[in-house]
Amino acid sequence: MQPVPCMDFKPLQADQVSAWDRAADVLIVGFGGAGACAAIEAADSGASVIIFDAASGAGGSTALSSAELYLGGGTSVQQAVGYDDTIEATYGYLMASNAPQADPEKVRAYAEGGADHLEWLKSLGVPFKHSEYPHRAMMALTDDCLLYTGSEKAWPYRDQFEAAPRGHNLEVEGDNGGPLLMQLLEAAVRERGVAVVLESRALRLIVEGRDDALPVCGVVVRQDGEERYYRAERGVVLCAGGFVMNSDMLNKHAPKLQRATIPIGNPNDTGAGIQMAAAVGARLINMDEGFVSLPFYPPASLTFGILVDGNGQRFINEDVYHGRVGTLILDQTWPVYLVVSVDDYADYETVSYLGAPIAATGETIEELCVELGLPEGALETTIETFNTSAAQGEDPQCHKHSDWLKPLTAPLVALDCTPGRGAFFPYFTLGGVDTTVNGAVLNEAGEPIPGLYAAGRTACGVPRRGDGYASGSSVGDATFSGRQAGRAAAQTGDTA
Amino acid sequence: MQPVPCMDFKPLQADQVSAWDRAADVLIVGFGGAGACAAIEAADSGASVIIFDAASGAGGSTALSSAELYLGGGTSVQQAVGYDDTIEATYGYLMASNAPQADPEKVRAYAEGGADHLEWLKSLGVPFKHSEYPHRAMMALTDDCLLYTGSEKAWPYRDQFEAAPRGHNLEVEGDNGGPLLMQLLEAAVRERGVAVVLESRALRLIVEGRDDALPVCGVVVRQDGEERYYRAERGVVLCAGGFVMNSDMLNKHAPKLQRATIPIGNPNDTGAGIQMAAAVGARLINMDEGFVSLPFYPPASLTFGILVDGNGQRFINEDVYHGRVGTLILDQTWPVYLVVSVDDYADYETVSYLGAPIAATGETIEELCVELGLPEGALETTIETFNTSAAQGEDPQCHKHSDWLKPLTAPLVALDCTPGRGAFFPYFTLGGVDTTVNGAVLNEAGEPIPGLYAAGRTACGVPRRGDGYASGSSVGDATFSGRQAGRAAAQTGDTA
Repeated sequence: MQPVPCMDFKPLQADQVSAWDRAADVLIVGFGGAGACAAIEAADSGASVIIFDAASGAGGSTALSSAELYLGGGTSVQQAVGYDDTIEATYGYLMASNAPQADPEKVRAYAEGGADHLEWLKSLGVPFKHSEYPHRAMMALTDDCLLYTGSEKAWPYRDQFEAAPRGHNLEVEGDNGGPLLMQLLEAAVRERGVAVVLESRALRLIVEGRDDALPVCGVVVRQDGEERYYRAERGVVLCAGGFVMNSDMLNKHAPKLQRATIPIGNPNDTGAGIQMAAAVGARLINMDEGFVSLPFYPPASLTFGILVDGNGQRFINEDVYHGRVGTLILDQTWPVYLVVSVDDYADYETVSYLGAPIAATGETIEELCVELGLPEGALETTIETFNTSAAQGEDPQCHKHSDWLKPLTAPLVALDCTPGRGAFFPYFTLGGVDTTVNGAVLNEAGEPIPGLYAAGRTACGVPRRGDGYASGSSVGDATFSGRQAGRAAAQTGDTA
Repeated sequence: MQPVPCMDFKPLQADQVSAWDRAADVLIVGFGGAGACAAIEAADSGASVIIFDAASGAGGSTALSSAELYLGGGTSVQQAVGYDDTIEATYGYLMASNAPQADPEKVRAYAEGGADHLEWLKSLGVPFKHSEYPHRAMMALTDDCLLYTGSEKAWPYRDQFEAAPRGHNLEVEGDNGGPLLMQLLEAAVRERGVAVVLESRALRLIVEGRDDALPVCGVVVRQDGEERYYRAERGVVLCAGGFVMNSDMLNKHAPKLQRATIPIGNPNDTGAGIQMAAAVGARLINMDEGFVSLPFYPPASLTFGILVDGNGQRFINEDVYHGRVGTLILDQTWPVYLVVSVDDYADYETVSYLGAPIAATGETIEELCVELGLPEGALETTIETFNTSAAQGEDPQCHKHSDWLKPLTAPLVALDCTPGRGAFFPYFTLGGVDTTVNGAVLNEAGEPIPGLYAAGRTACGVPRRGDGYASGSSVGDATFSGRQAGRAAAQTGDTA
């Protein structure tokens, strides 16, 4: 990773601005999923809007993602397919999987508003098929919609909350949801007459007033090598992504995340929005947390295998979401191996994203154990215990669902899932600016900073834990929180 | 815990101050261990100094502590007692036990400066006996000095770094090190003509300048119900403790810590120093981390027992420092039991701080297992495995040292160590303001905020992890970092 050049995010006092270049009711920094939705809602609330992006086009990290949306509570697709998902089950699952730092108010709004949010996206032309992709998979590569993208069917959640698939995949073949979603959102933004200002990097917030009140009233933007001064009559919305591309911020705030190997996001996920907010006193929360994945399925049959640590012991039910596996691996005694039968290894080499090299193979369990060089007898004991339980359809140790339980039979393969040895360990950040459910940025004392809003990964929203993450909860949360922030920013002027 | 009243920490612009009440070169907020040492060094650097505390006397949380100091690298006491501790071993242990978020520069300075720091304290009259308290204990209740206060002799550290006792207990009987240390430091402060201003709560920083530079130049202090304006000619040093007494900050920054039960510190550990710094753009780091303890020894003989989780499995080598045990328990599947023979239960009821109730007793292993109601057969298997290994003086599963290994023999007792069921689980925070090794406060972009310094638990220093904590590293770090910050603040005026 390139080091991010040290920038000066200190706010500029408005009376230092000799001439304003341009003004609008709402200024939005960042044209990814959150910024686009903020712009649409702000415009639909009657505000004039300017949206900036440092890149030469709209998209942000949303365009790079699969753009599943994690939505529940009985969406139109869930109902059409036959799932009676409830708001309470959605709320309960999201609270439990993001505990203890879940924000009850945000999760409540998200669970209650999920079905409407899908309809809103559909009203913008975003296509969702009334169908399900009924496999254990990282993503649906068909144009089918519903997919289980979390650990709803796995222990410890399966006994607590009625499971339902909540990942909503766009109706498009292949892994092309992100580009399509952003193309449609961009069209909706432009249709509304929002001024789109690209290749323009927001540098600093502009504040006015003295002493007690420092309302945010504008943004300094670098365009064509020059600083321009944009005035916000009502509010500024920061939707500038997370900080996974900023190694200094990672070192300071999320050192453990870097045990994973590949930061994912767009190159402008440098935390600039977070830093601009911090420079006016915003509270940053959950900064140590991130999404980490060990994408070990497909093939789904690898789920029949067992993951063992450097002591030869299991540490997880292998039927959970890949992000829970990846997150827990960071804290284990390394090395970490996935041991699976050759039968279930199946078409790993052609369909897997994992890239984990083979650590050992064995015609017998004993041979594999010797080759892996784990503490003598440890792996044998683990496999014996697992096989005995699995034969009875039980896993008292790690609680893998009986659907994924069967004794391991030789010949066996062990994949090396130790971070840094070839397996794909992507990660991104889940910390950011603390906001109200409406996107107002809070200071360290919990009070709103007038005129400042944030959404998407610049803020800290619904997804808060790597071990509880579900695919689609970032794009879902970004688009949802962007809408709240855009609406709130547009309305500030009216109520002031 | 009482909710902390919401305060407004926004800085005041200097030109809003109509009249300054008083001025000094260096203003120090907080008269605990860090503030006292900052005051002494600032005064010895030739600065005029005012030190404030919200309480009616000096002391802070240091006075409430045992005031061991974790110092290594070959202190005079270590040498006199016969330990050849090295700077490299001290550095290595502190880096490893605080990884990955350890600050190499701070740990280096602390390891290299430990021996001198002890001499400096001795020069102020702080007494240390040339002796060792050679037992596994929470603290020395005698006037002996050296004590192992971390996990130096336990896996995984014992194989990596030469162990040495680095806890330095003051020469005083009973748990009275804290009051004595603060009494001596306060005397040294007053001897130097430092102005001590008590019952005075620092409310907000005062900043001057516009645009790029916002140097901190003073403090608003509430005294006798009125706001007073103190000017700092050279710098302000925040030594106002951590935030364990602020439930809002805990909820936002360290939600998991509250799985422990008893916040420890002084009532003014409300994060006010951290919030004042944040309001001028300071970077807050490591905010999710804290010290957590399960003080299960004395009696040391409980170390012969095994800790098991709700699945009846062990999860730790029980010979580690009590803070590592406490921290790991927060993440286990609850309940958590300590299973020990009645012989080793010994004088638990009279000497323990733990307060854990008896969950079950058993004349046989089977009886105990049934009574505890863990998954059928799980605890039996765990004890069998442990006993077989222990009989051979080995613990391949959790690596407890052979000194603490022997098979568990009936009759047995199980203590309930589940948080919330009676066992004493104290905690405090380890996150704070990011600073340079000299105590200069950094903003989110990593640049120093002119005129602002921090030390002790307001800053983020050497101890950074609950699972790697060692007793004495907070008082050691507070007194050490206070000195650096006091010196740096005093010198700013000279070099400007």
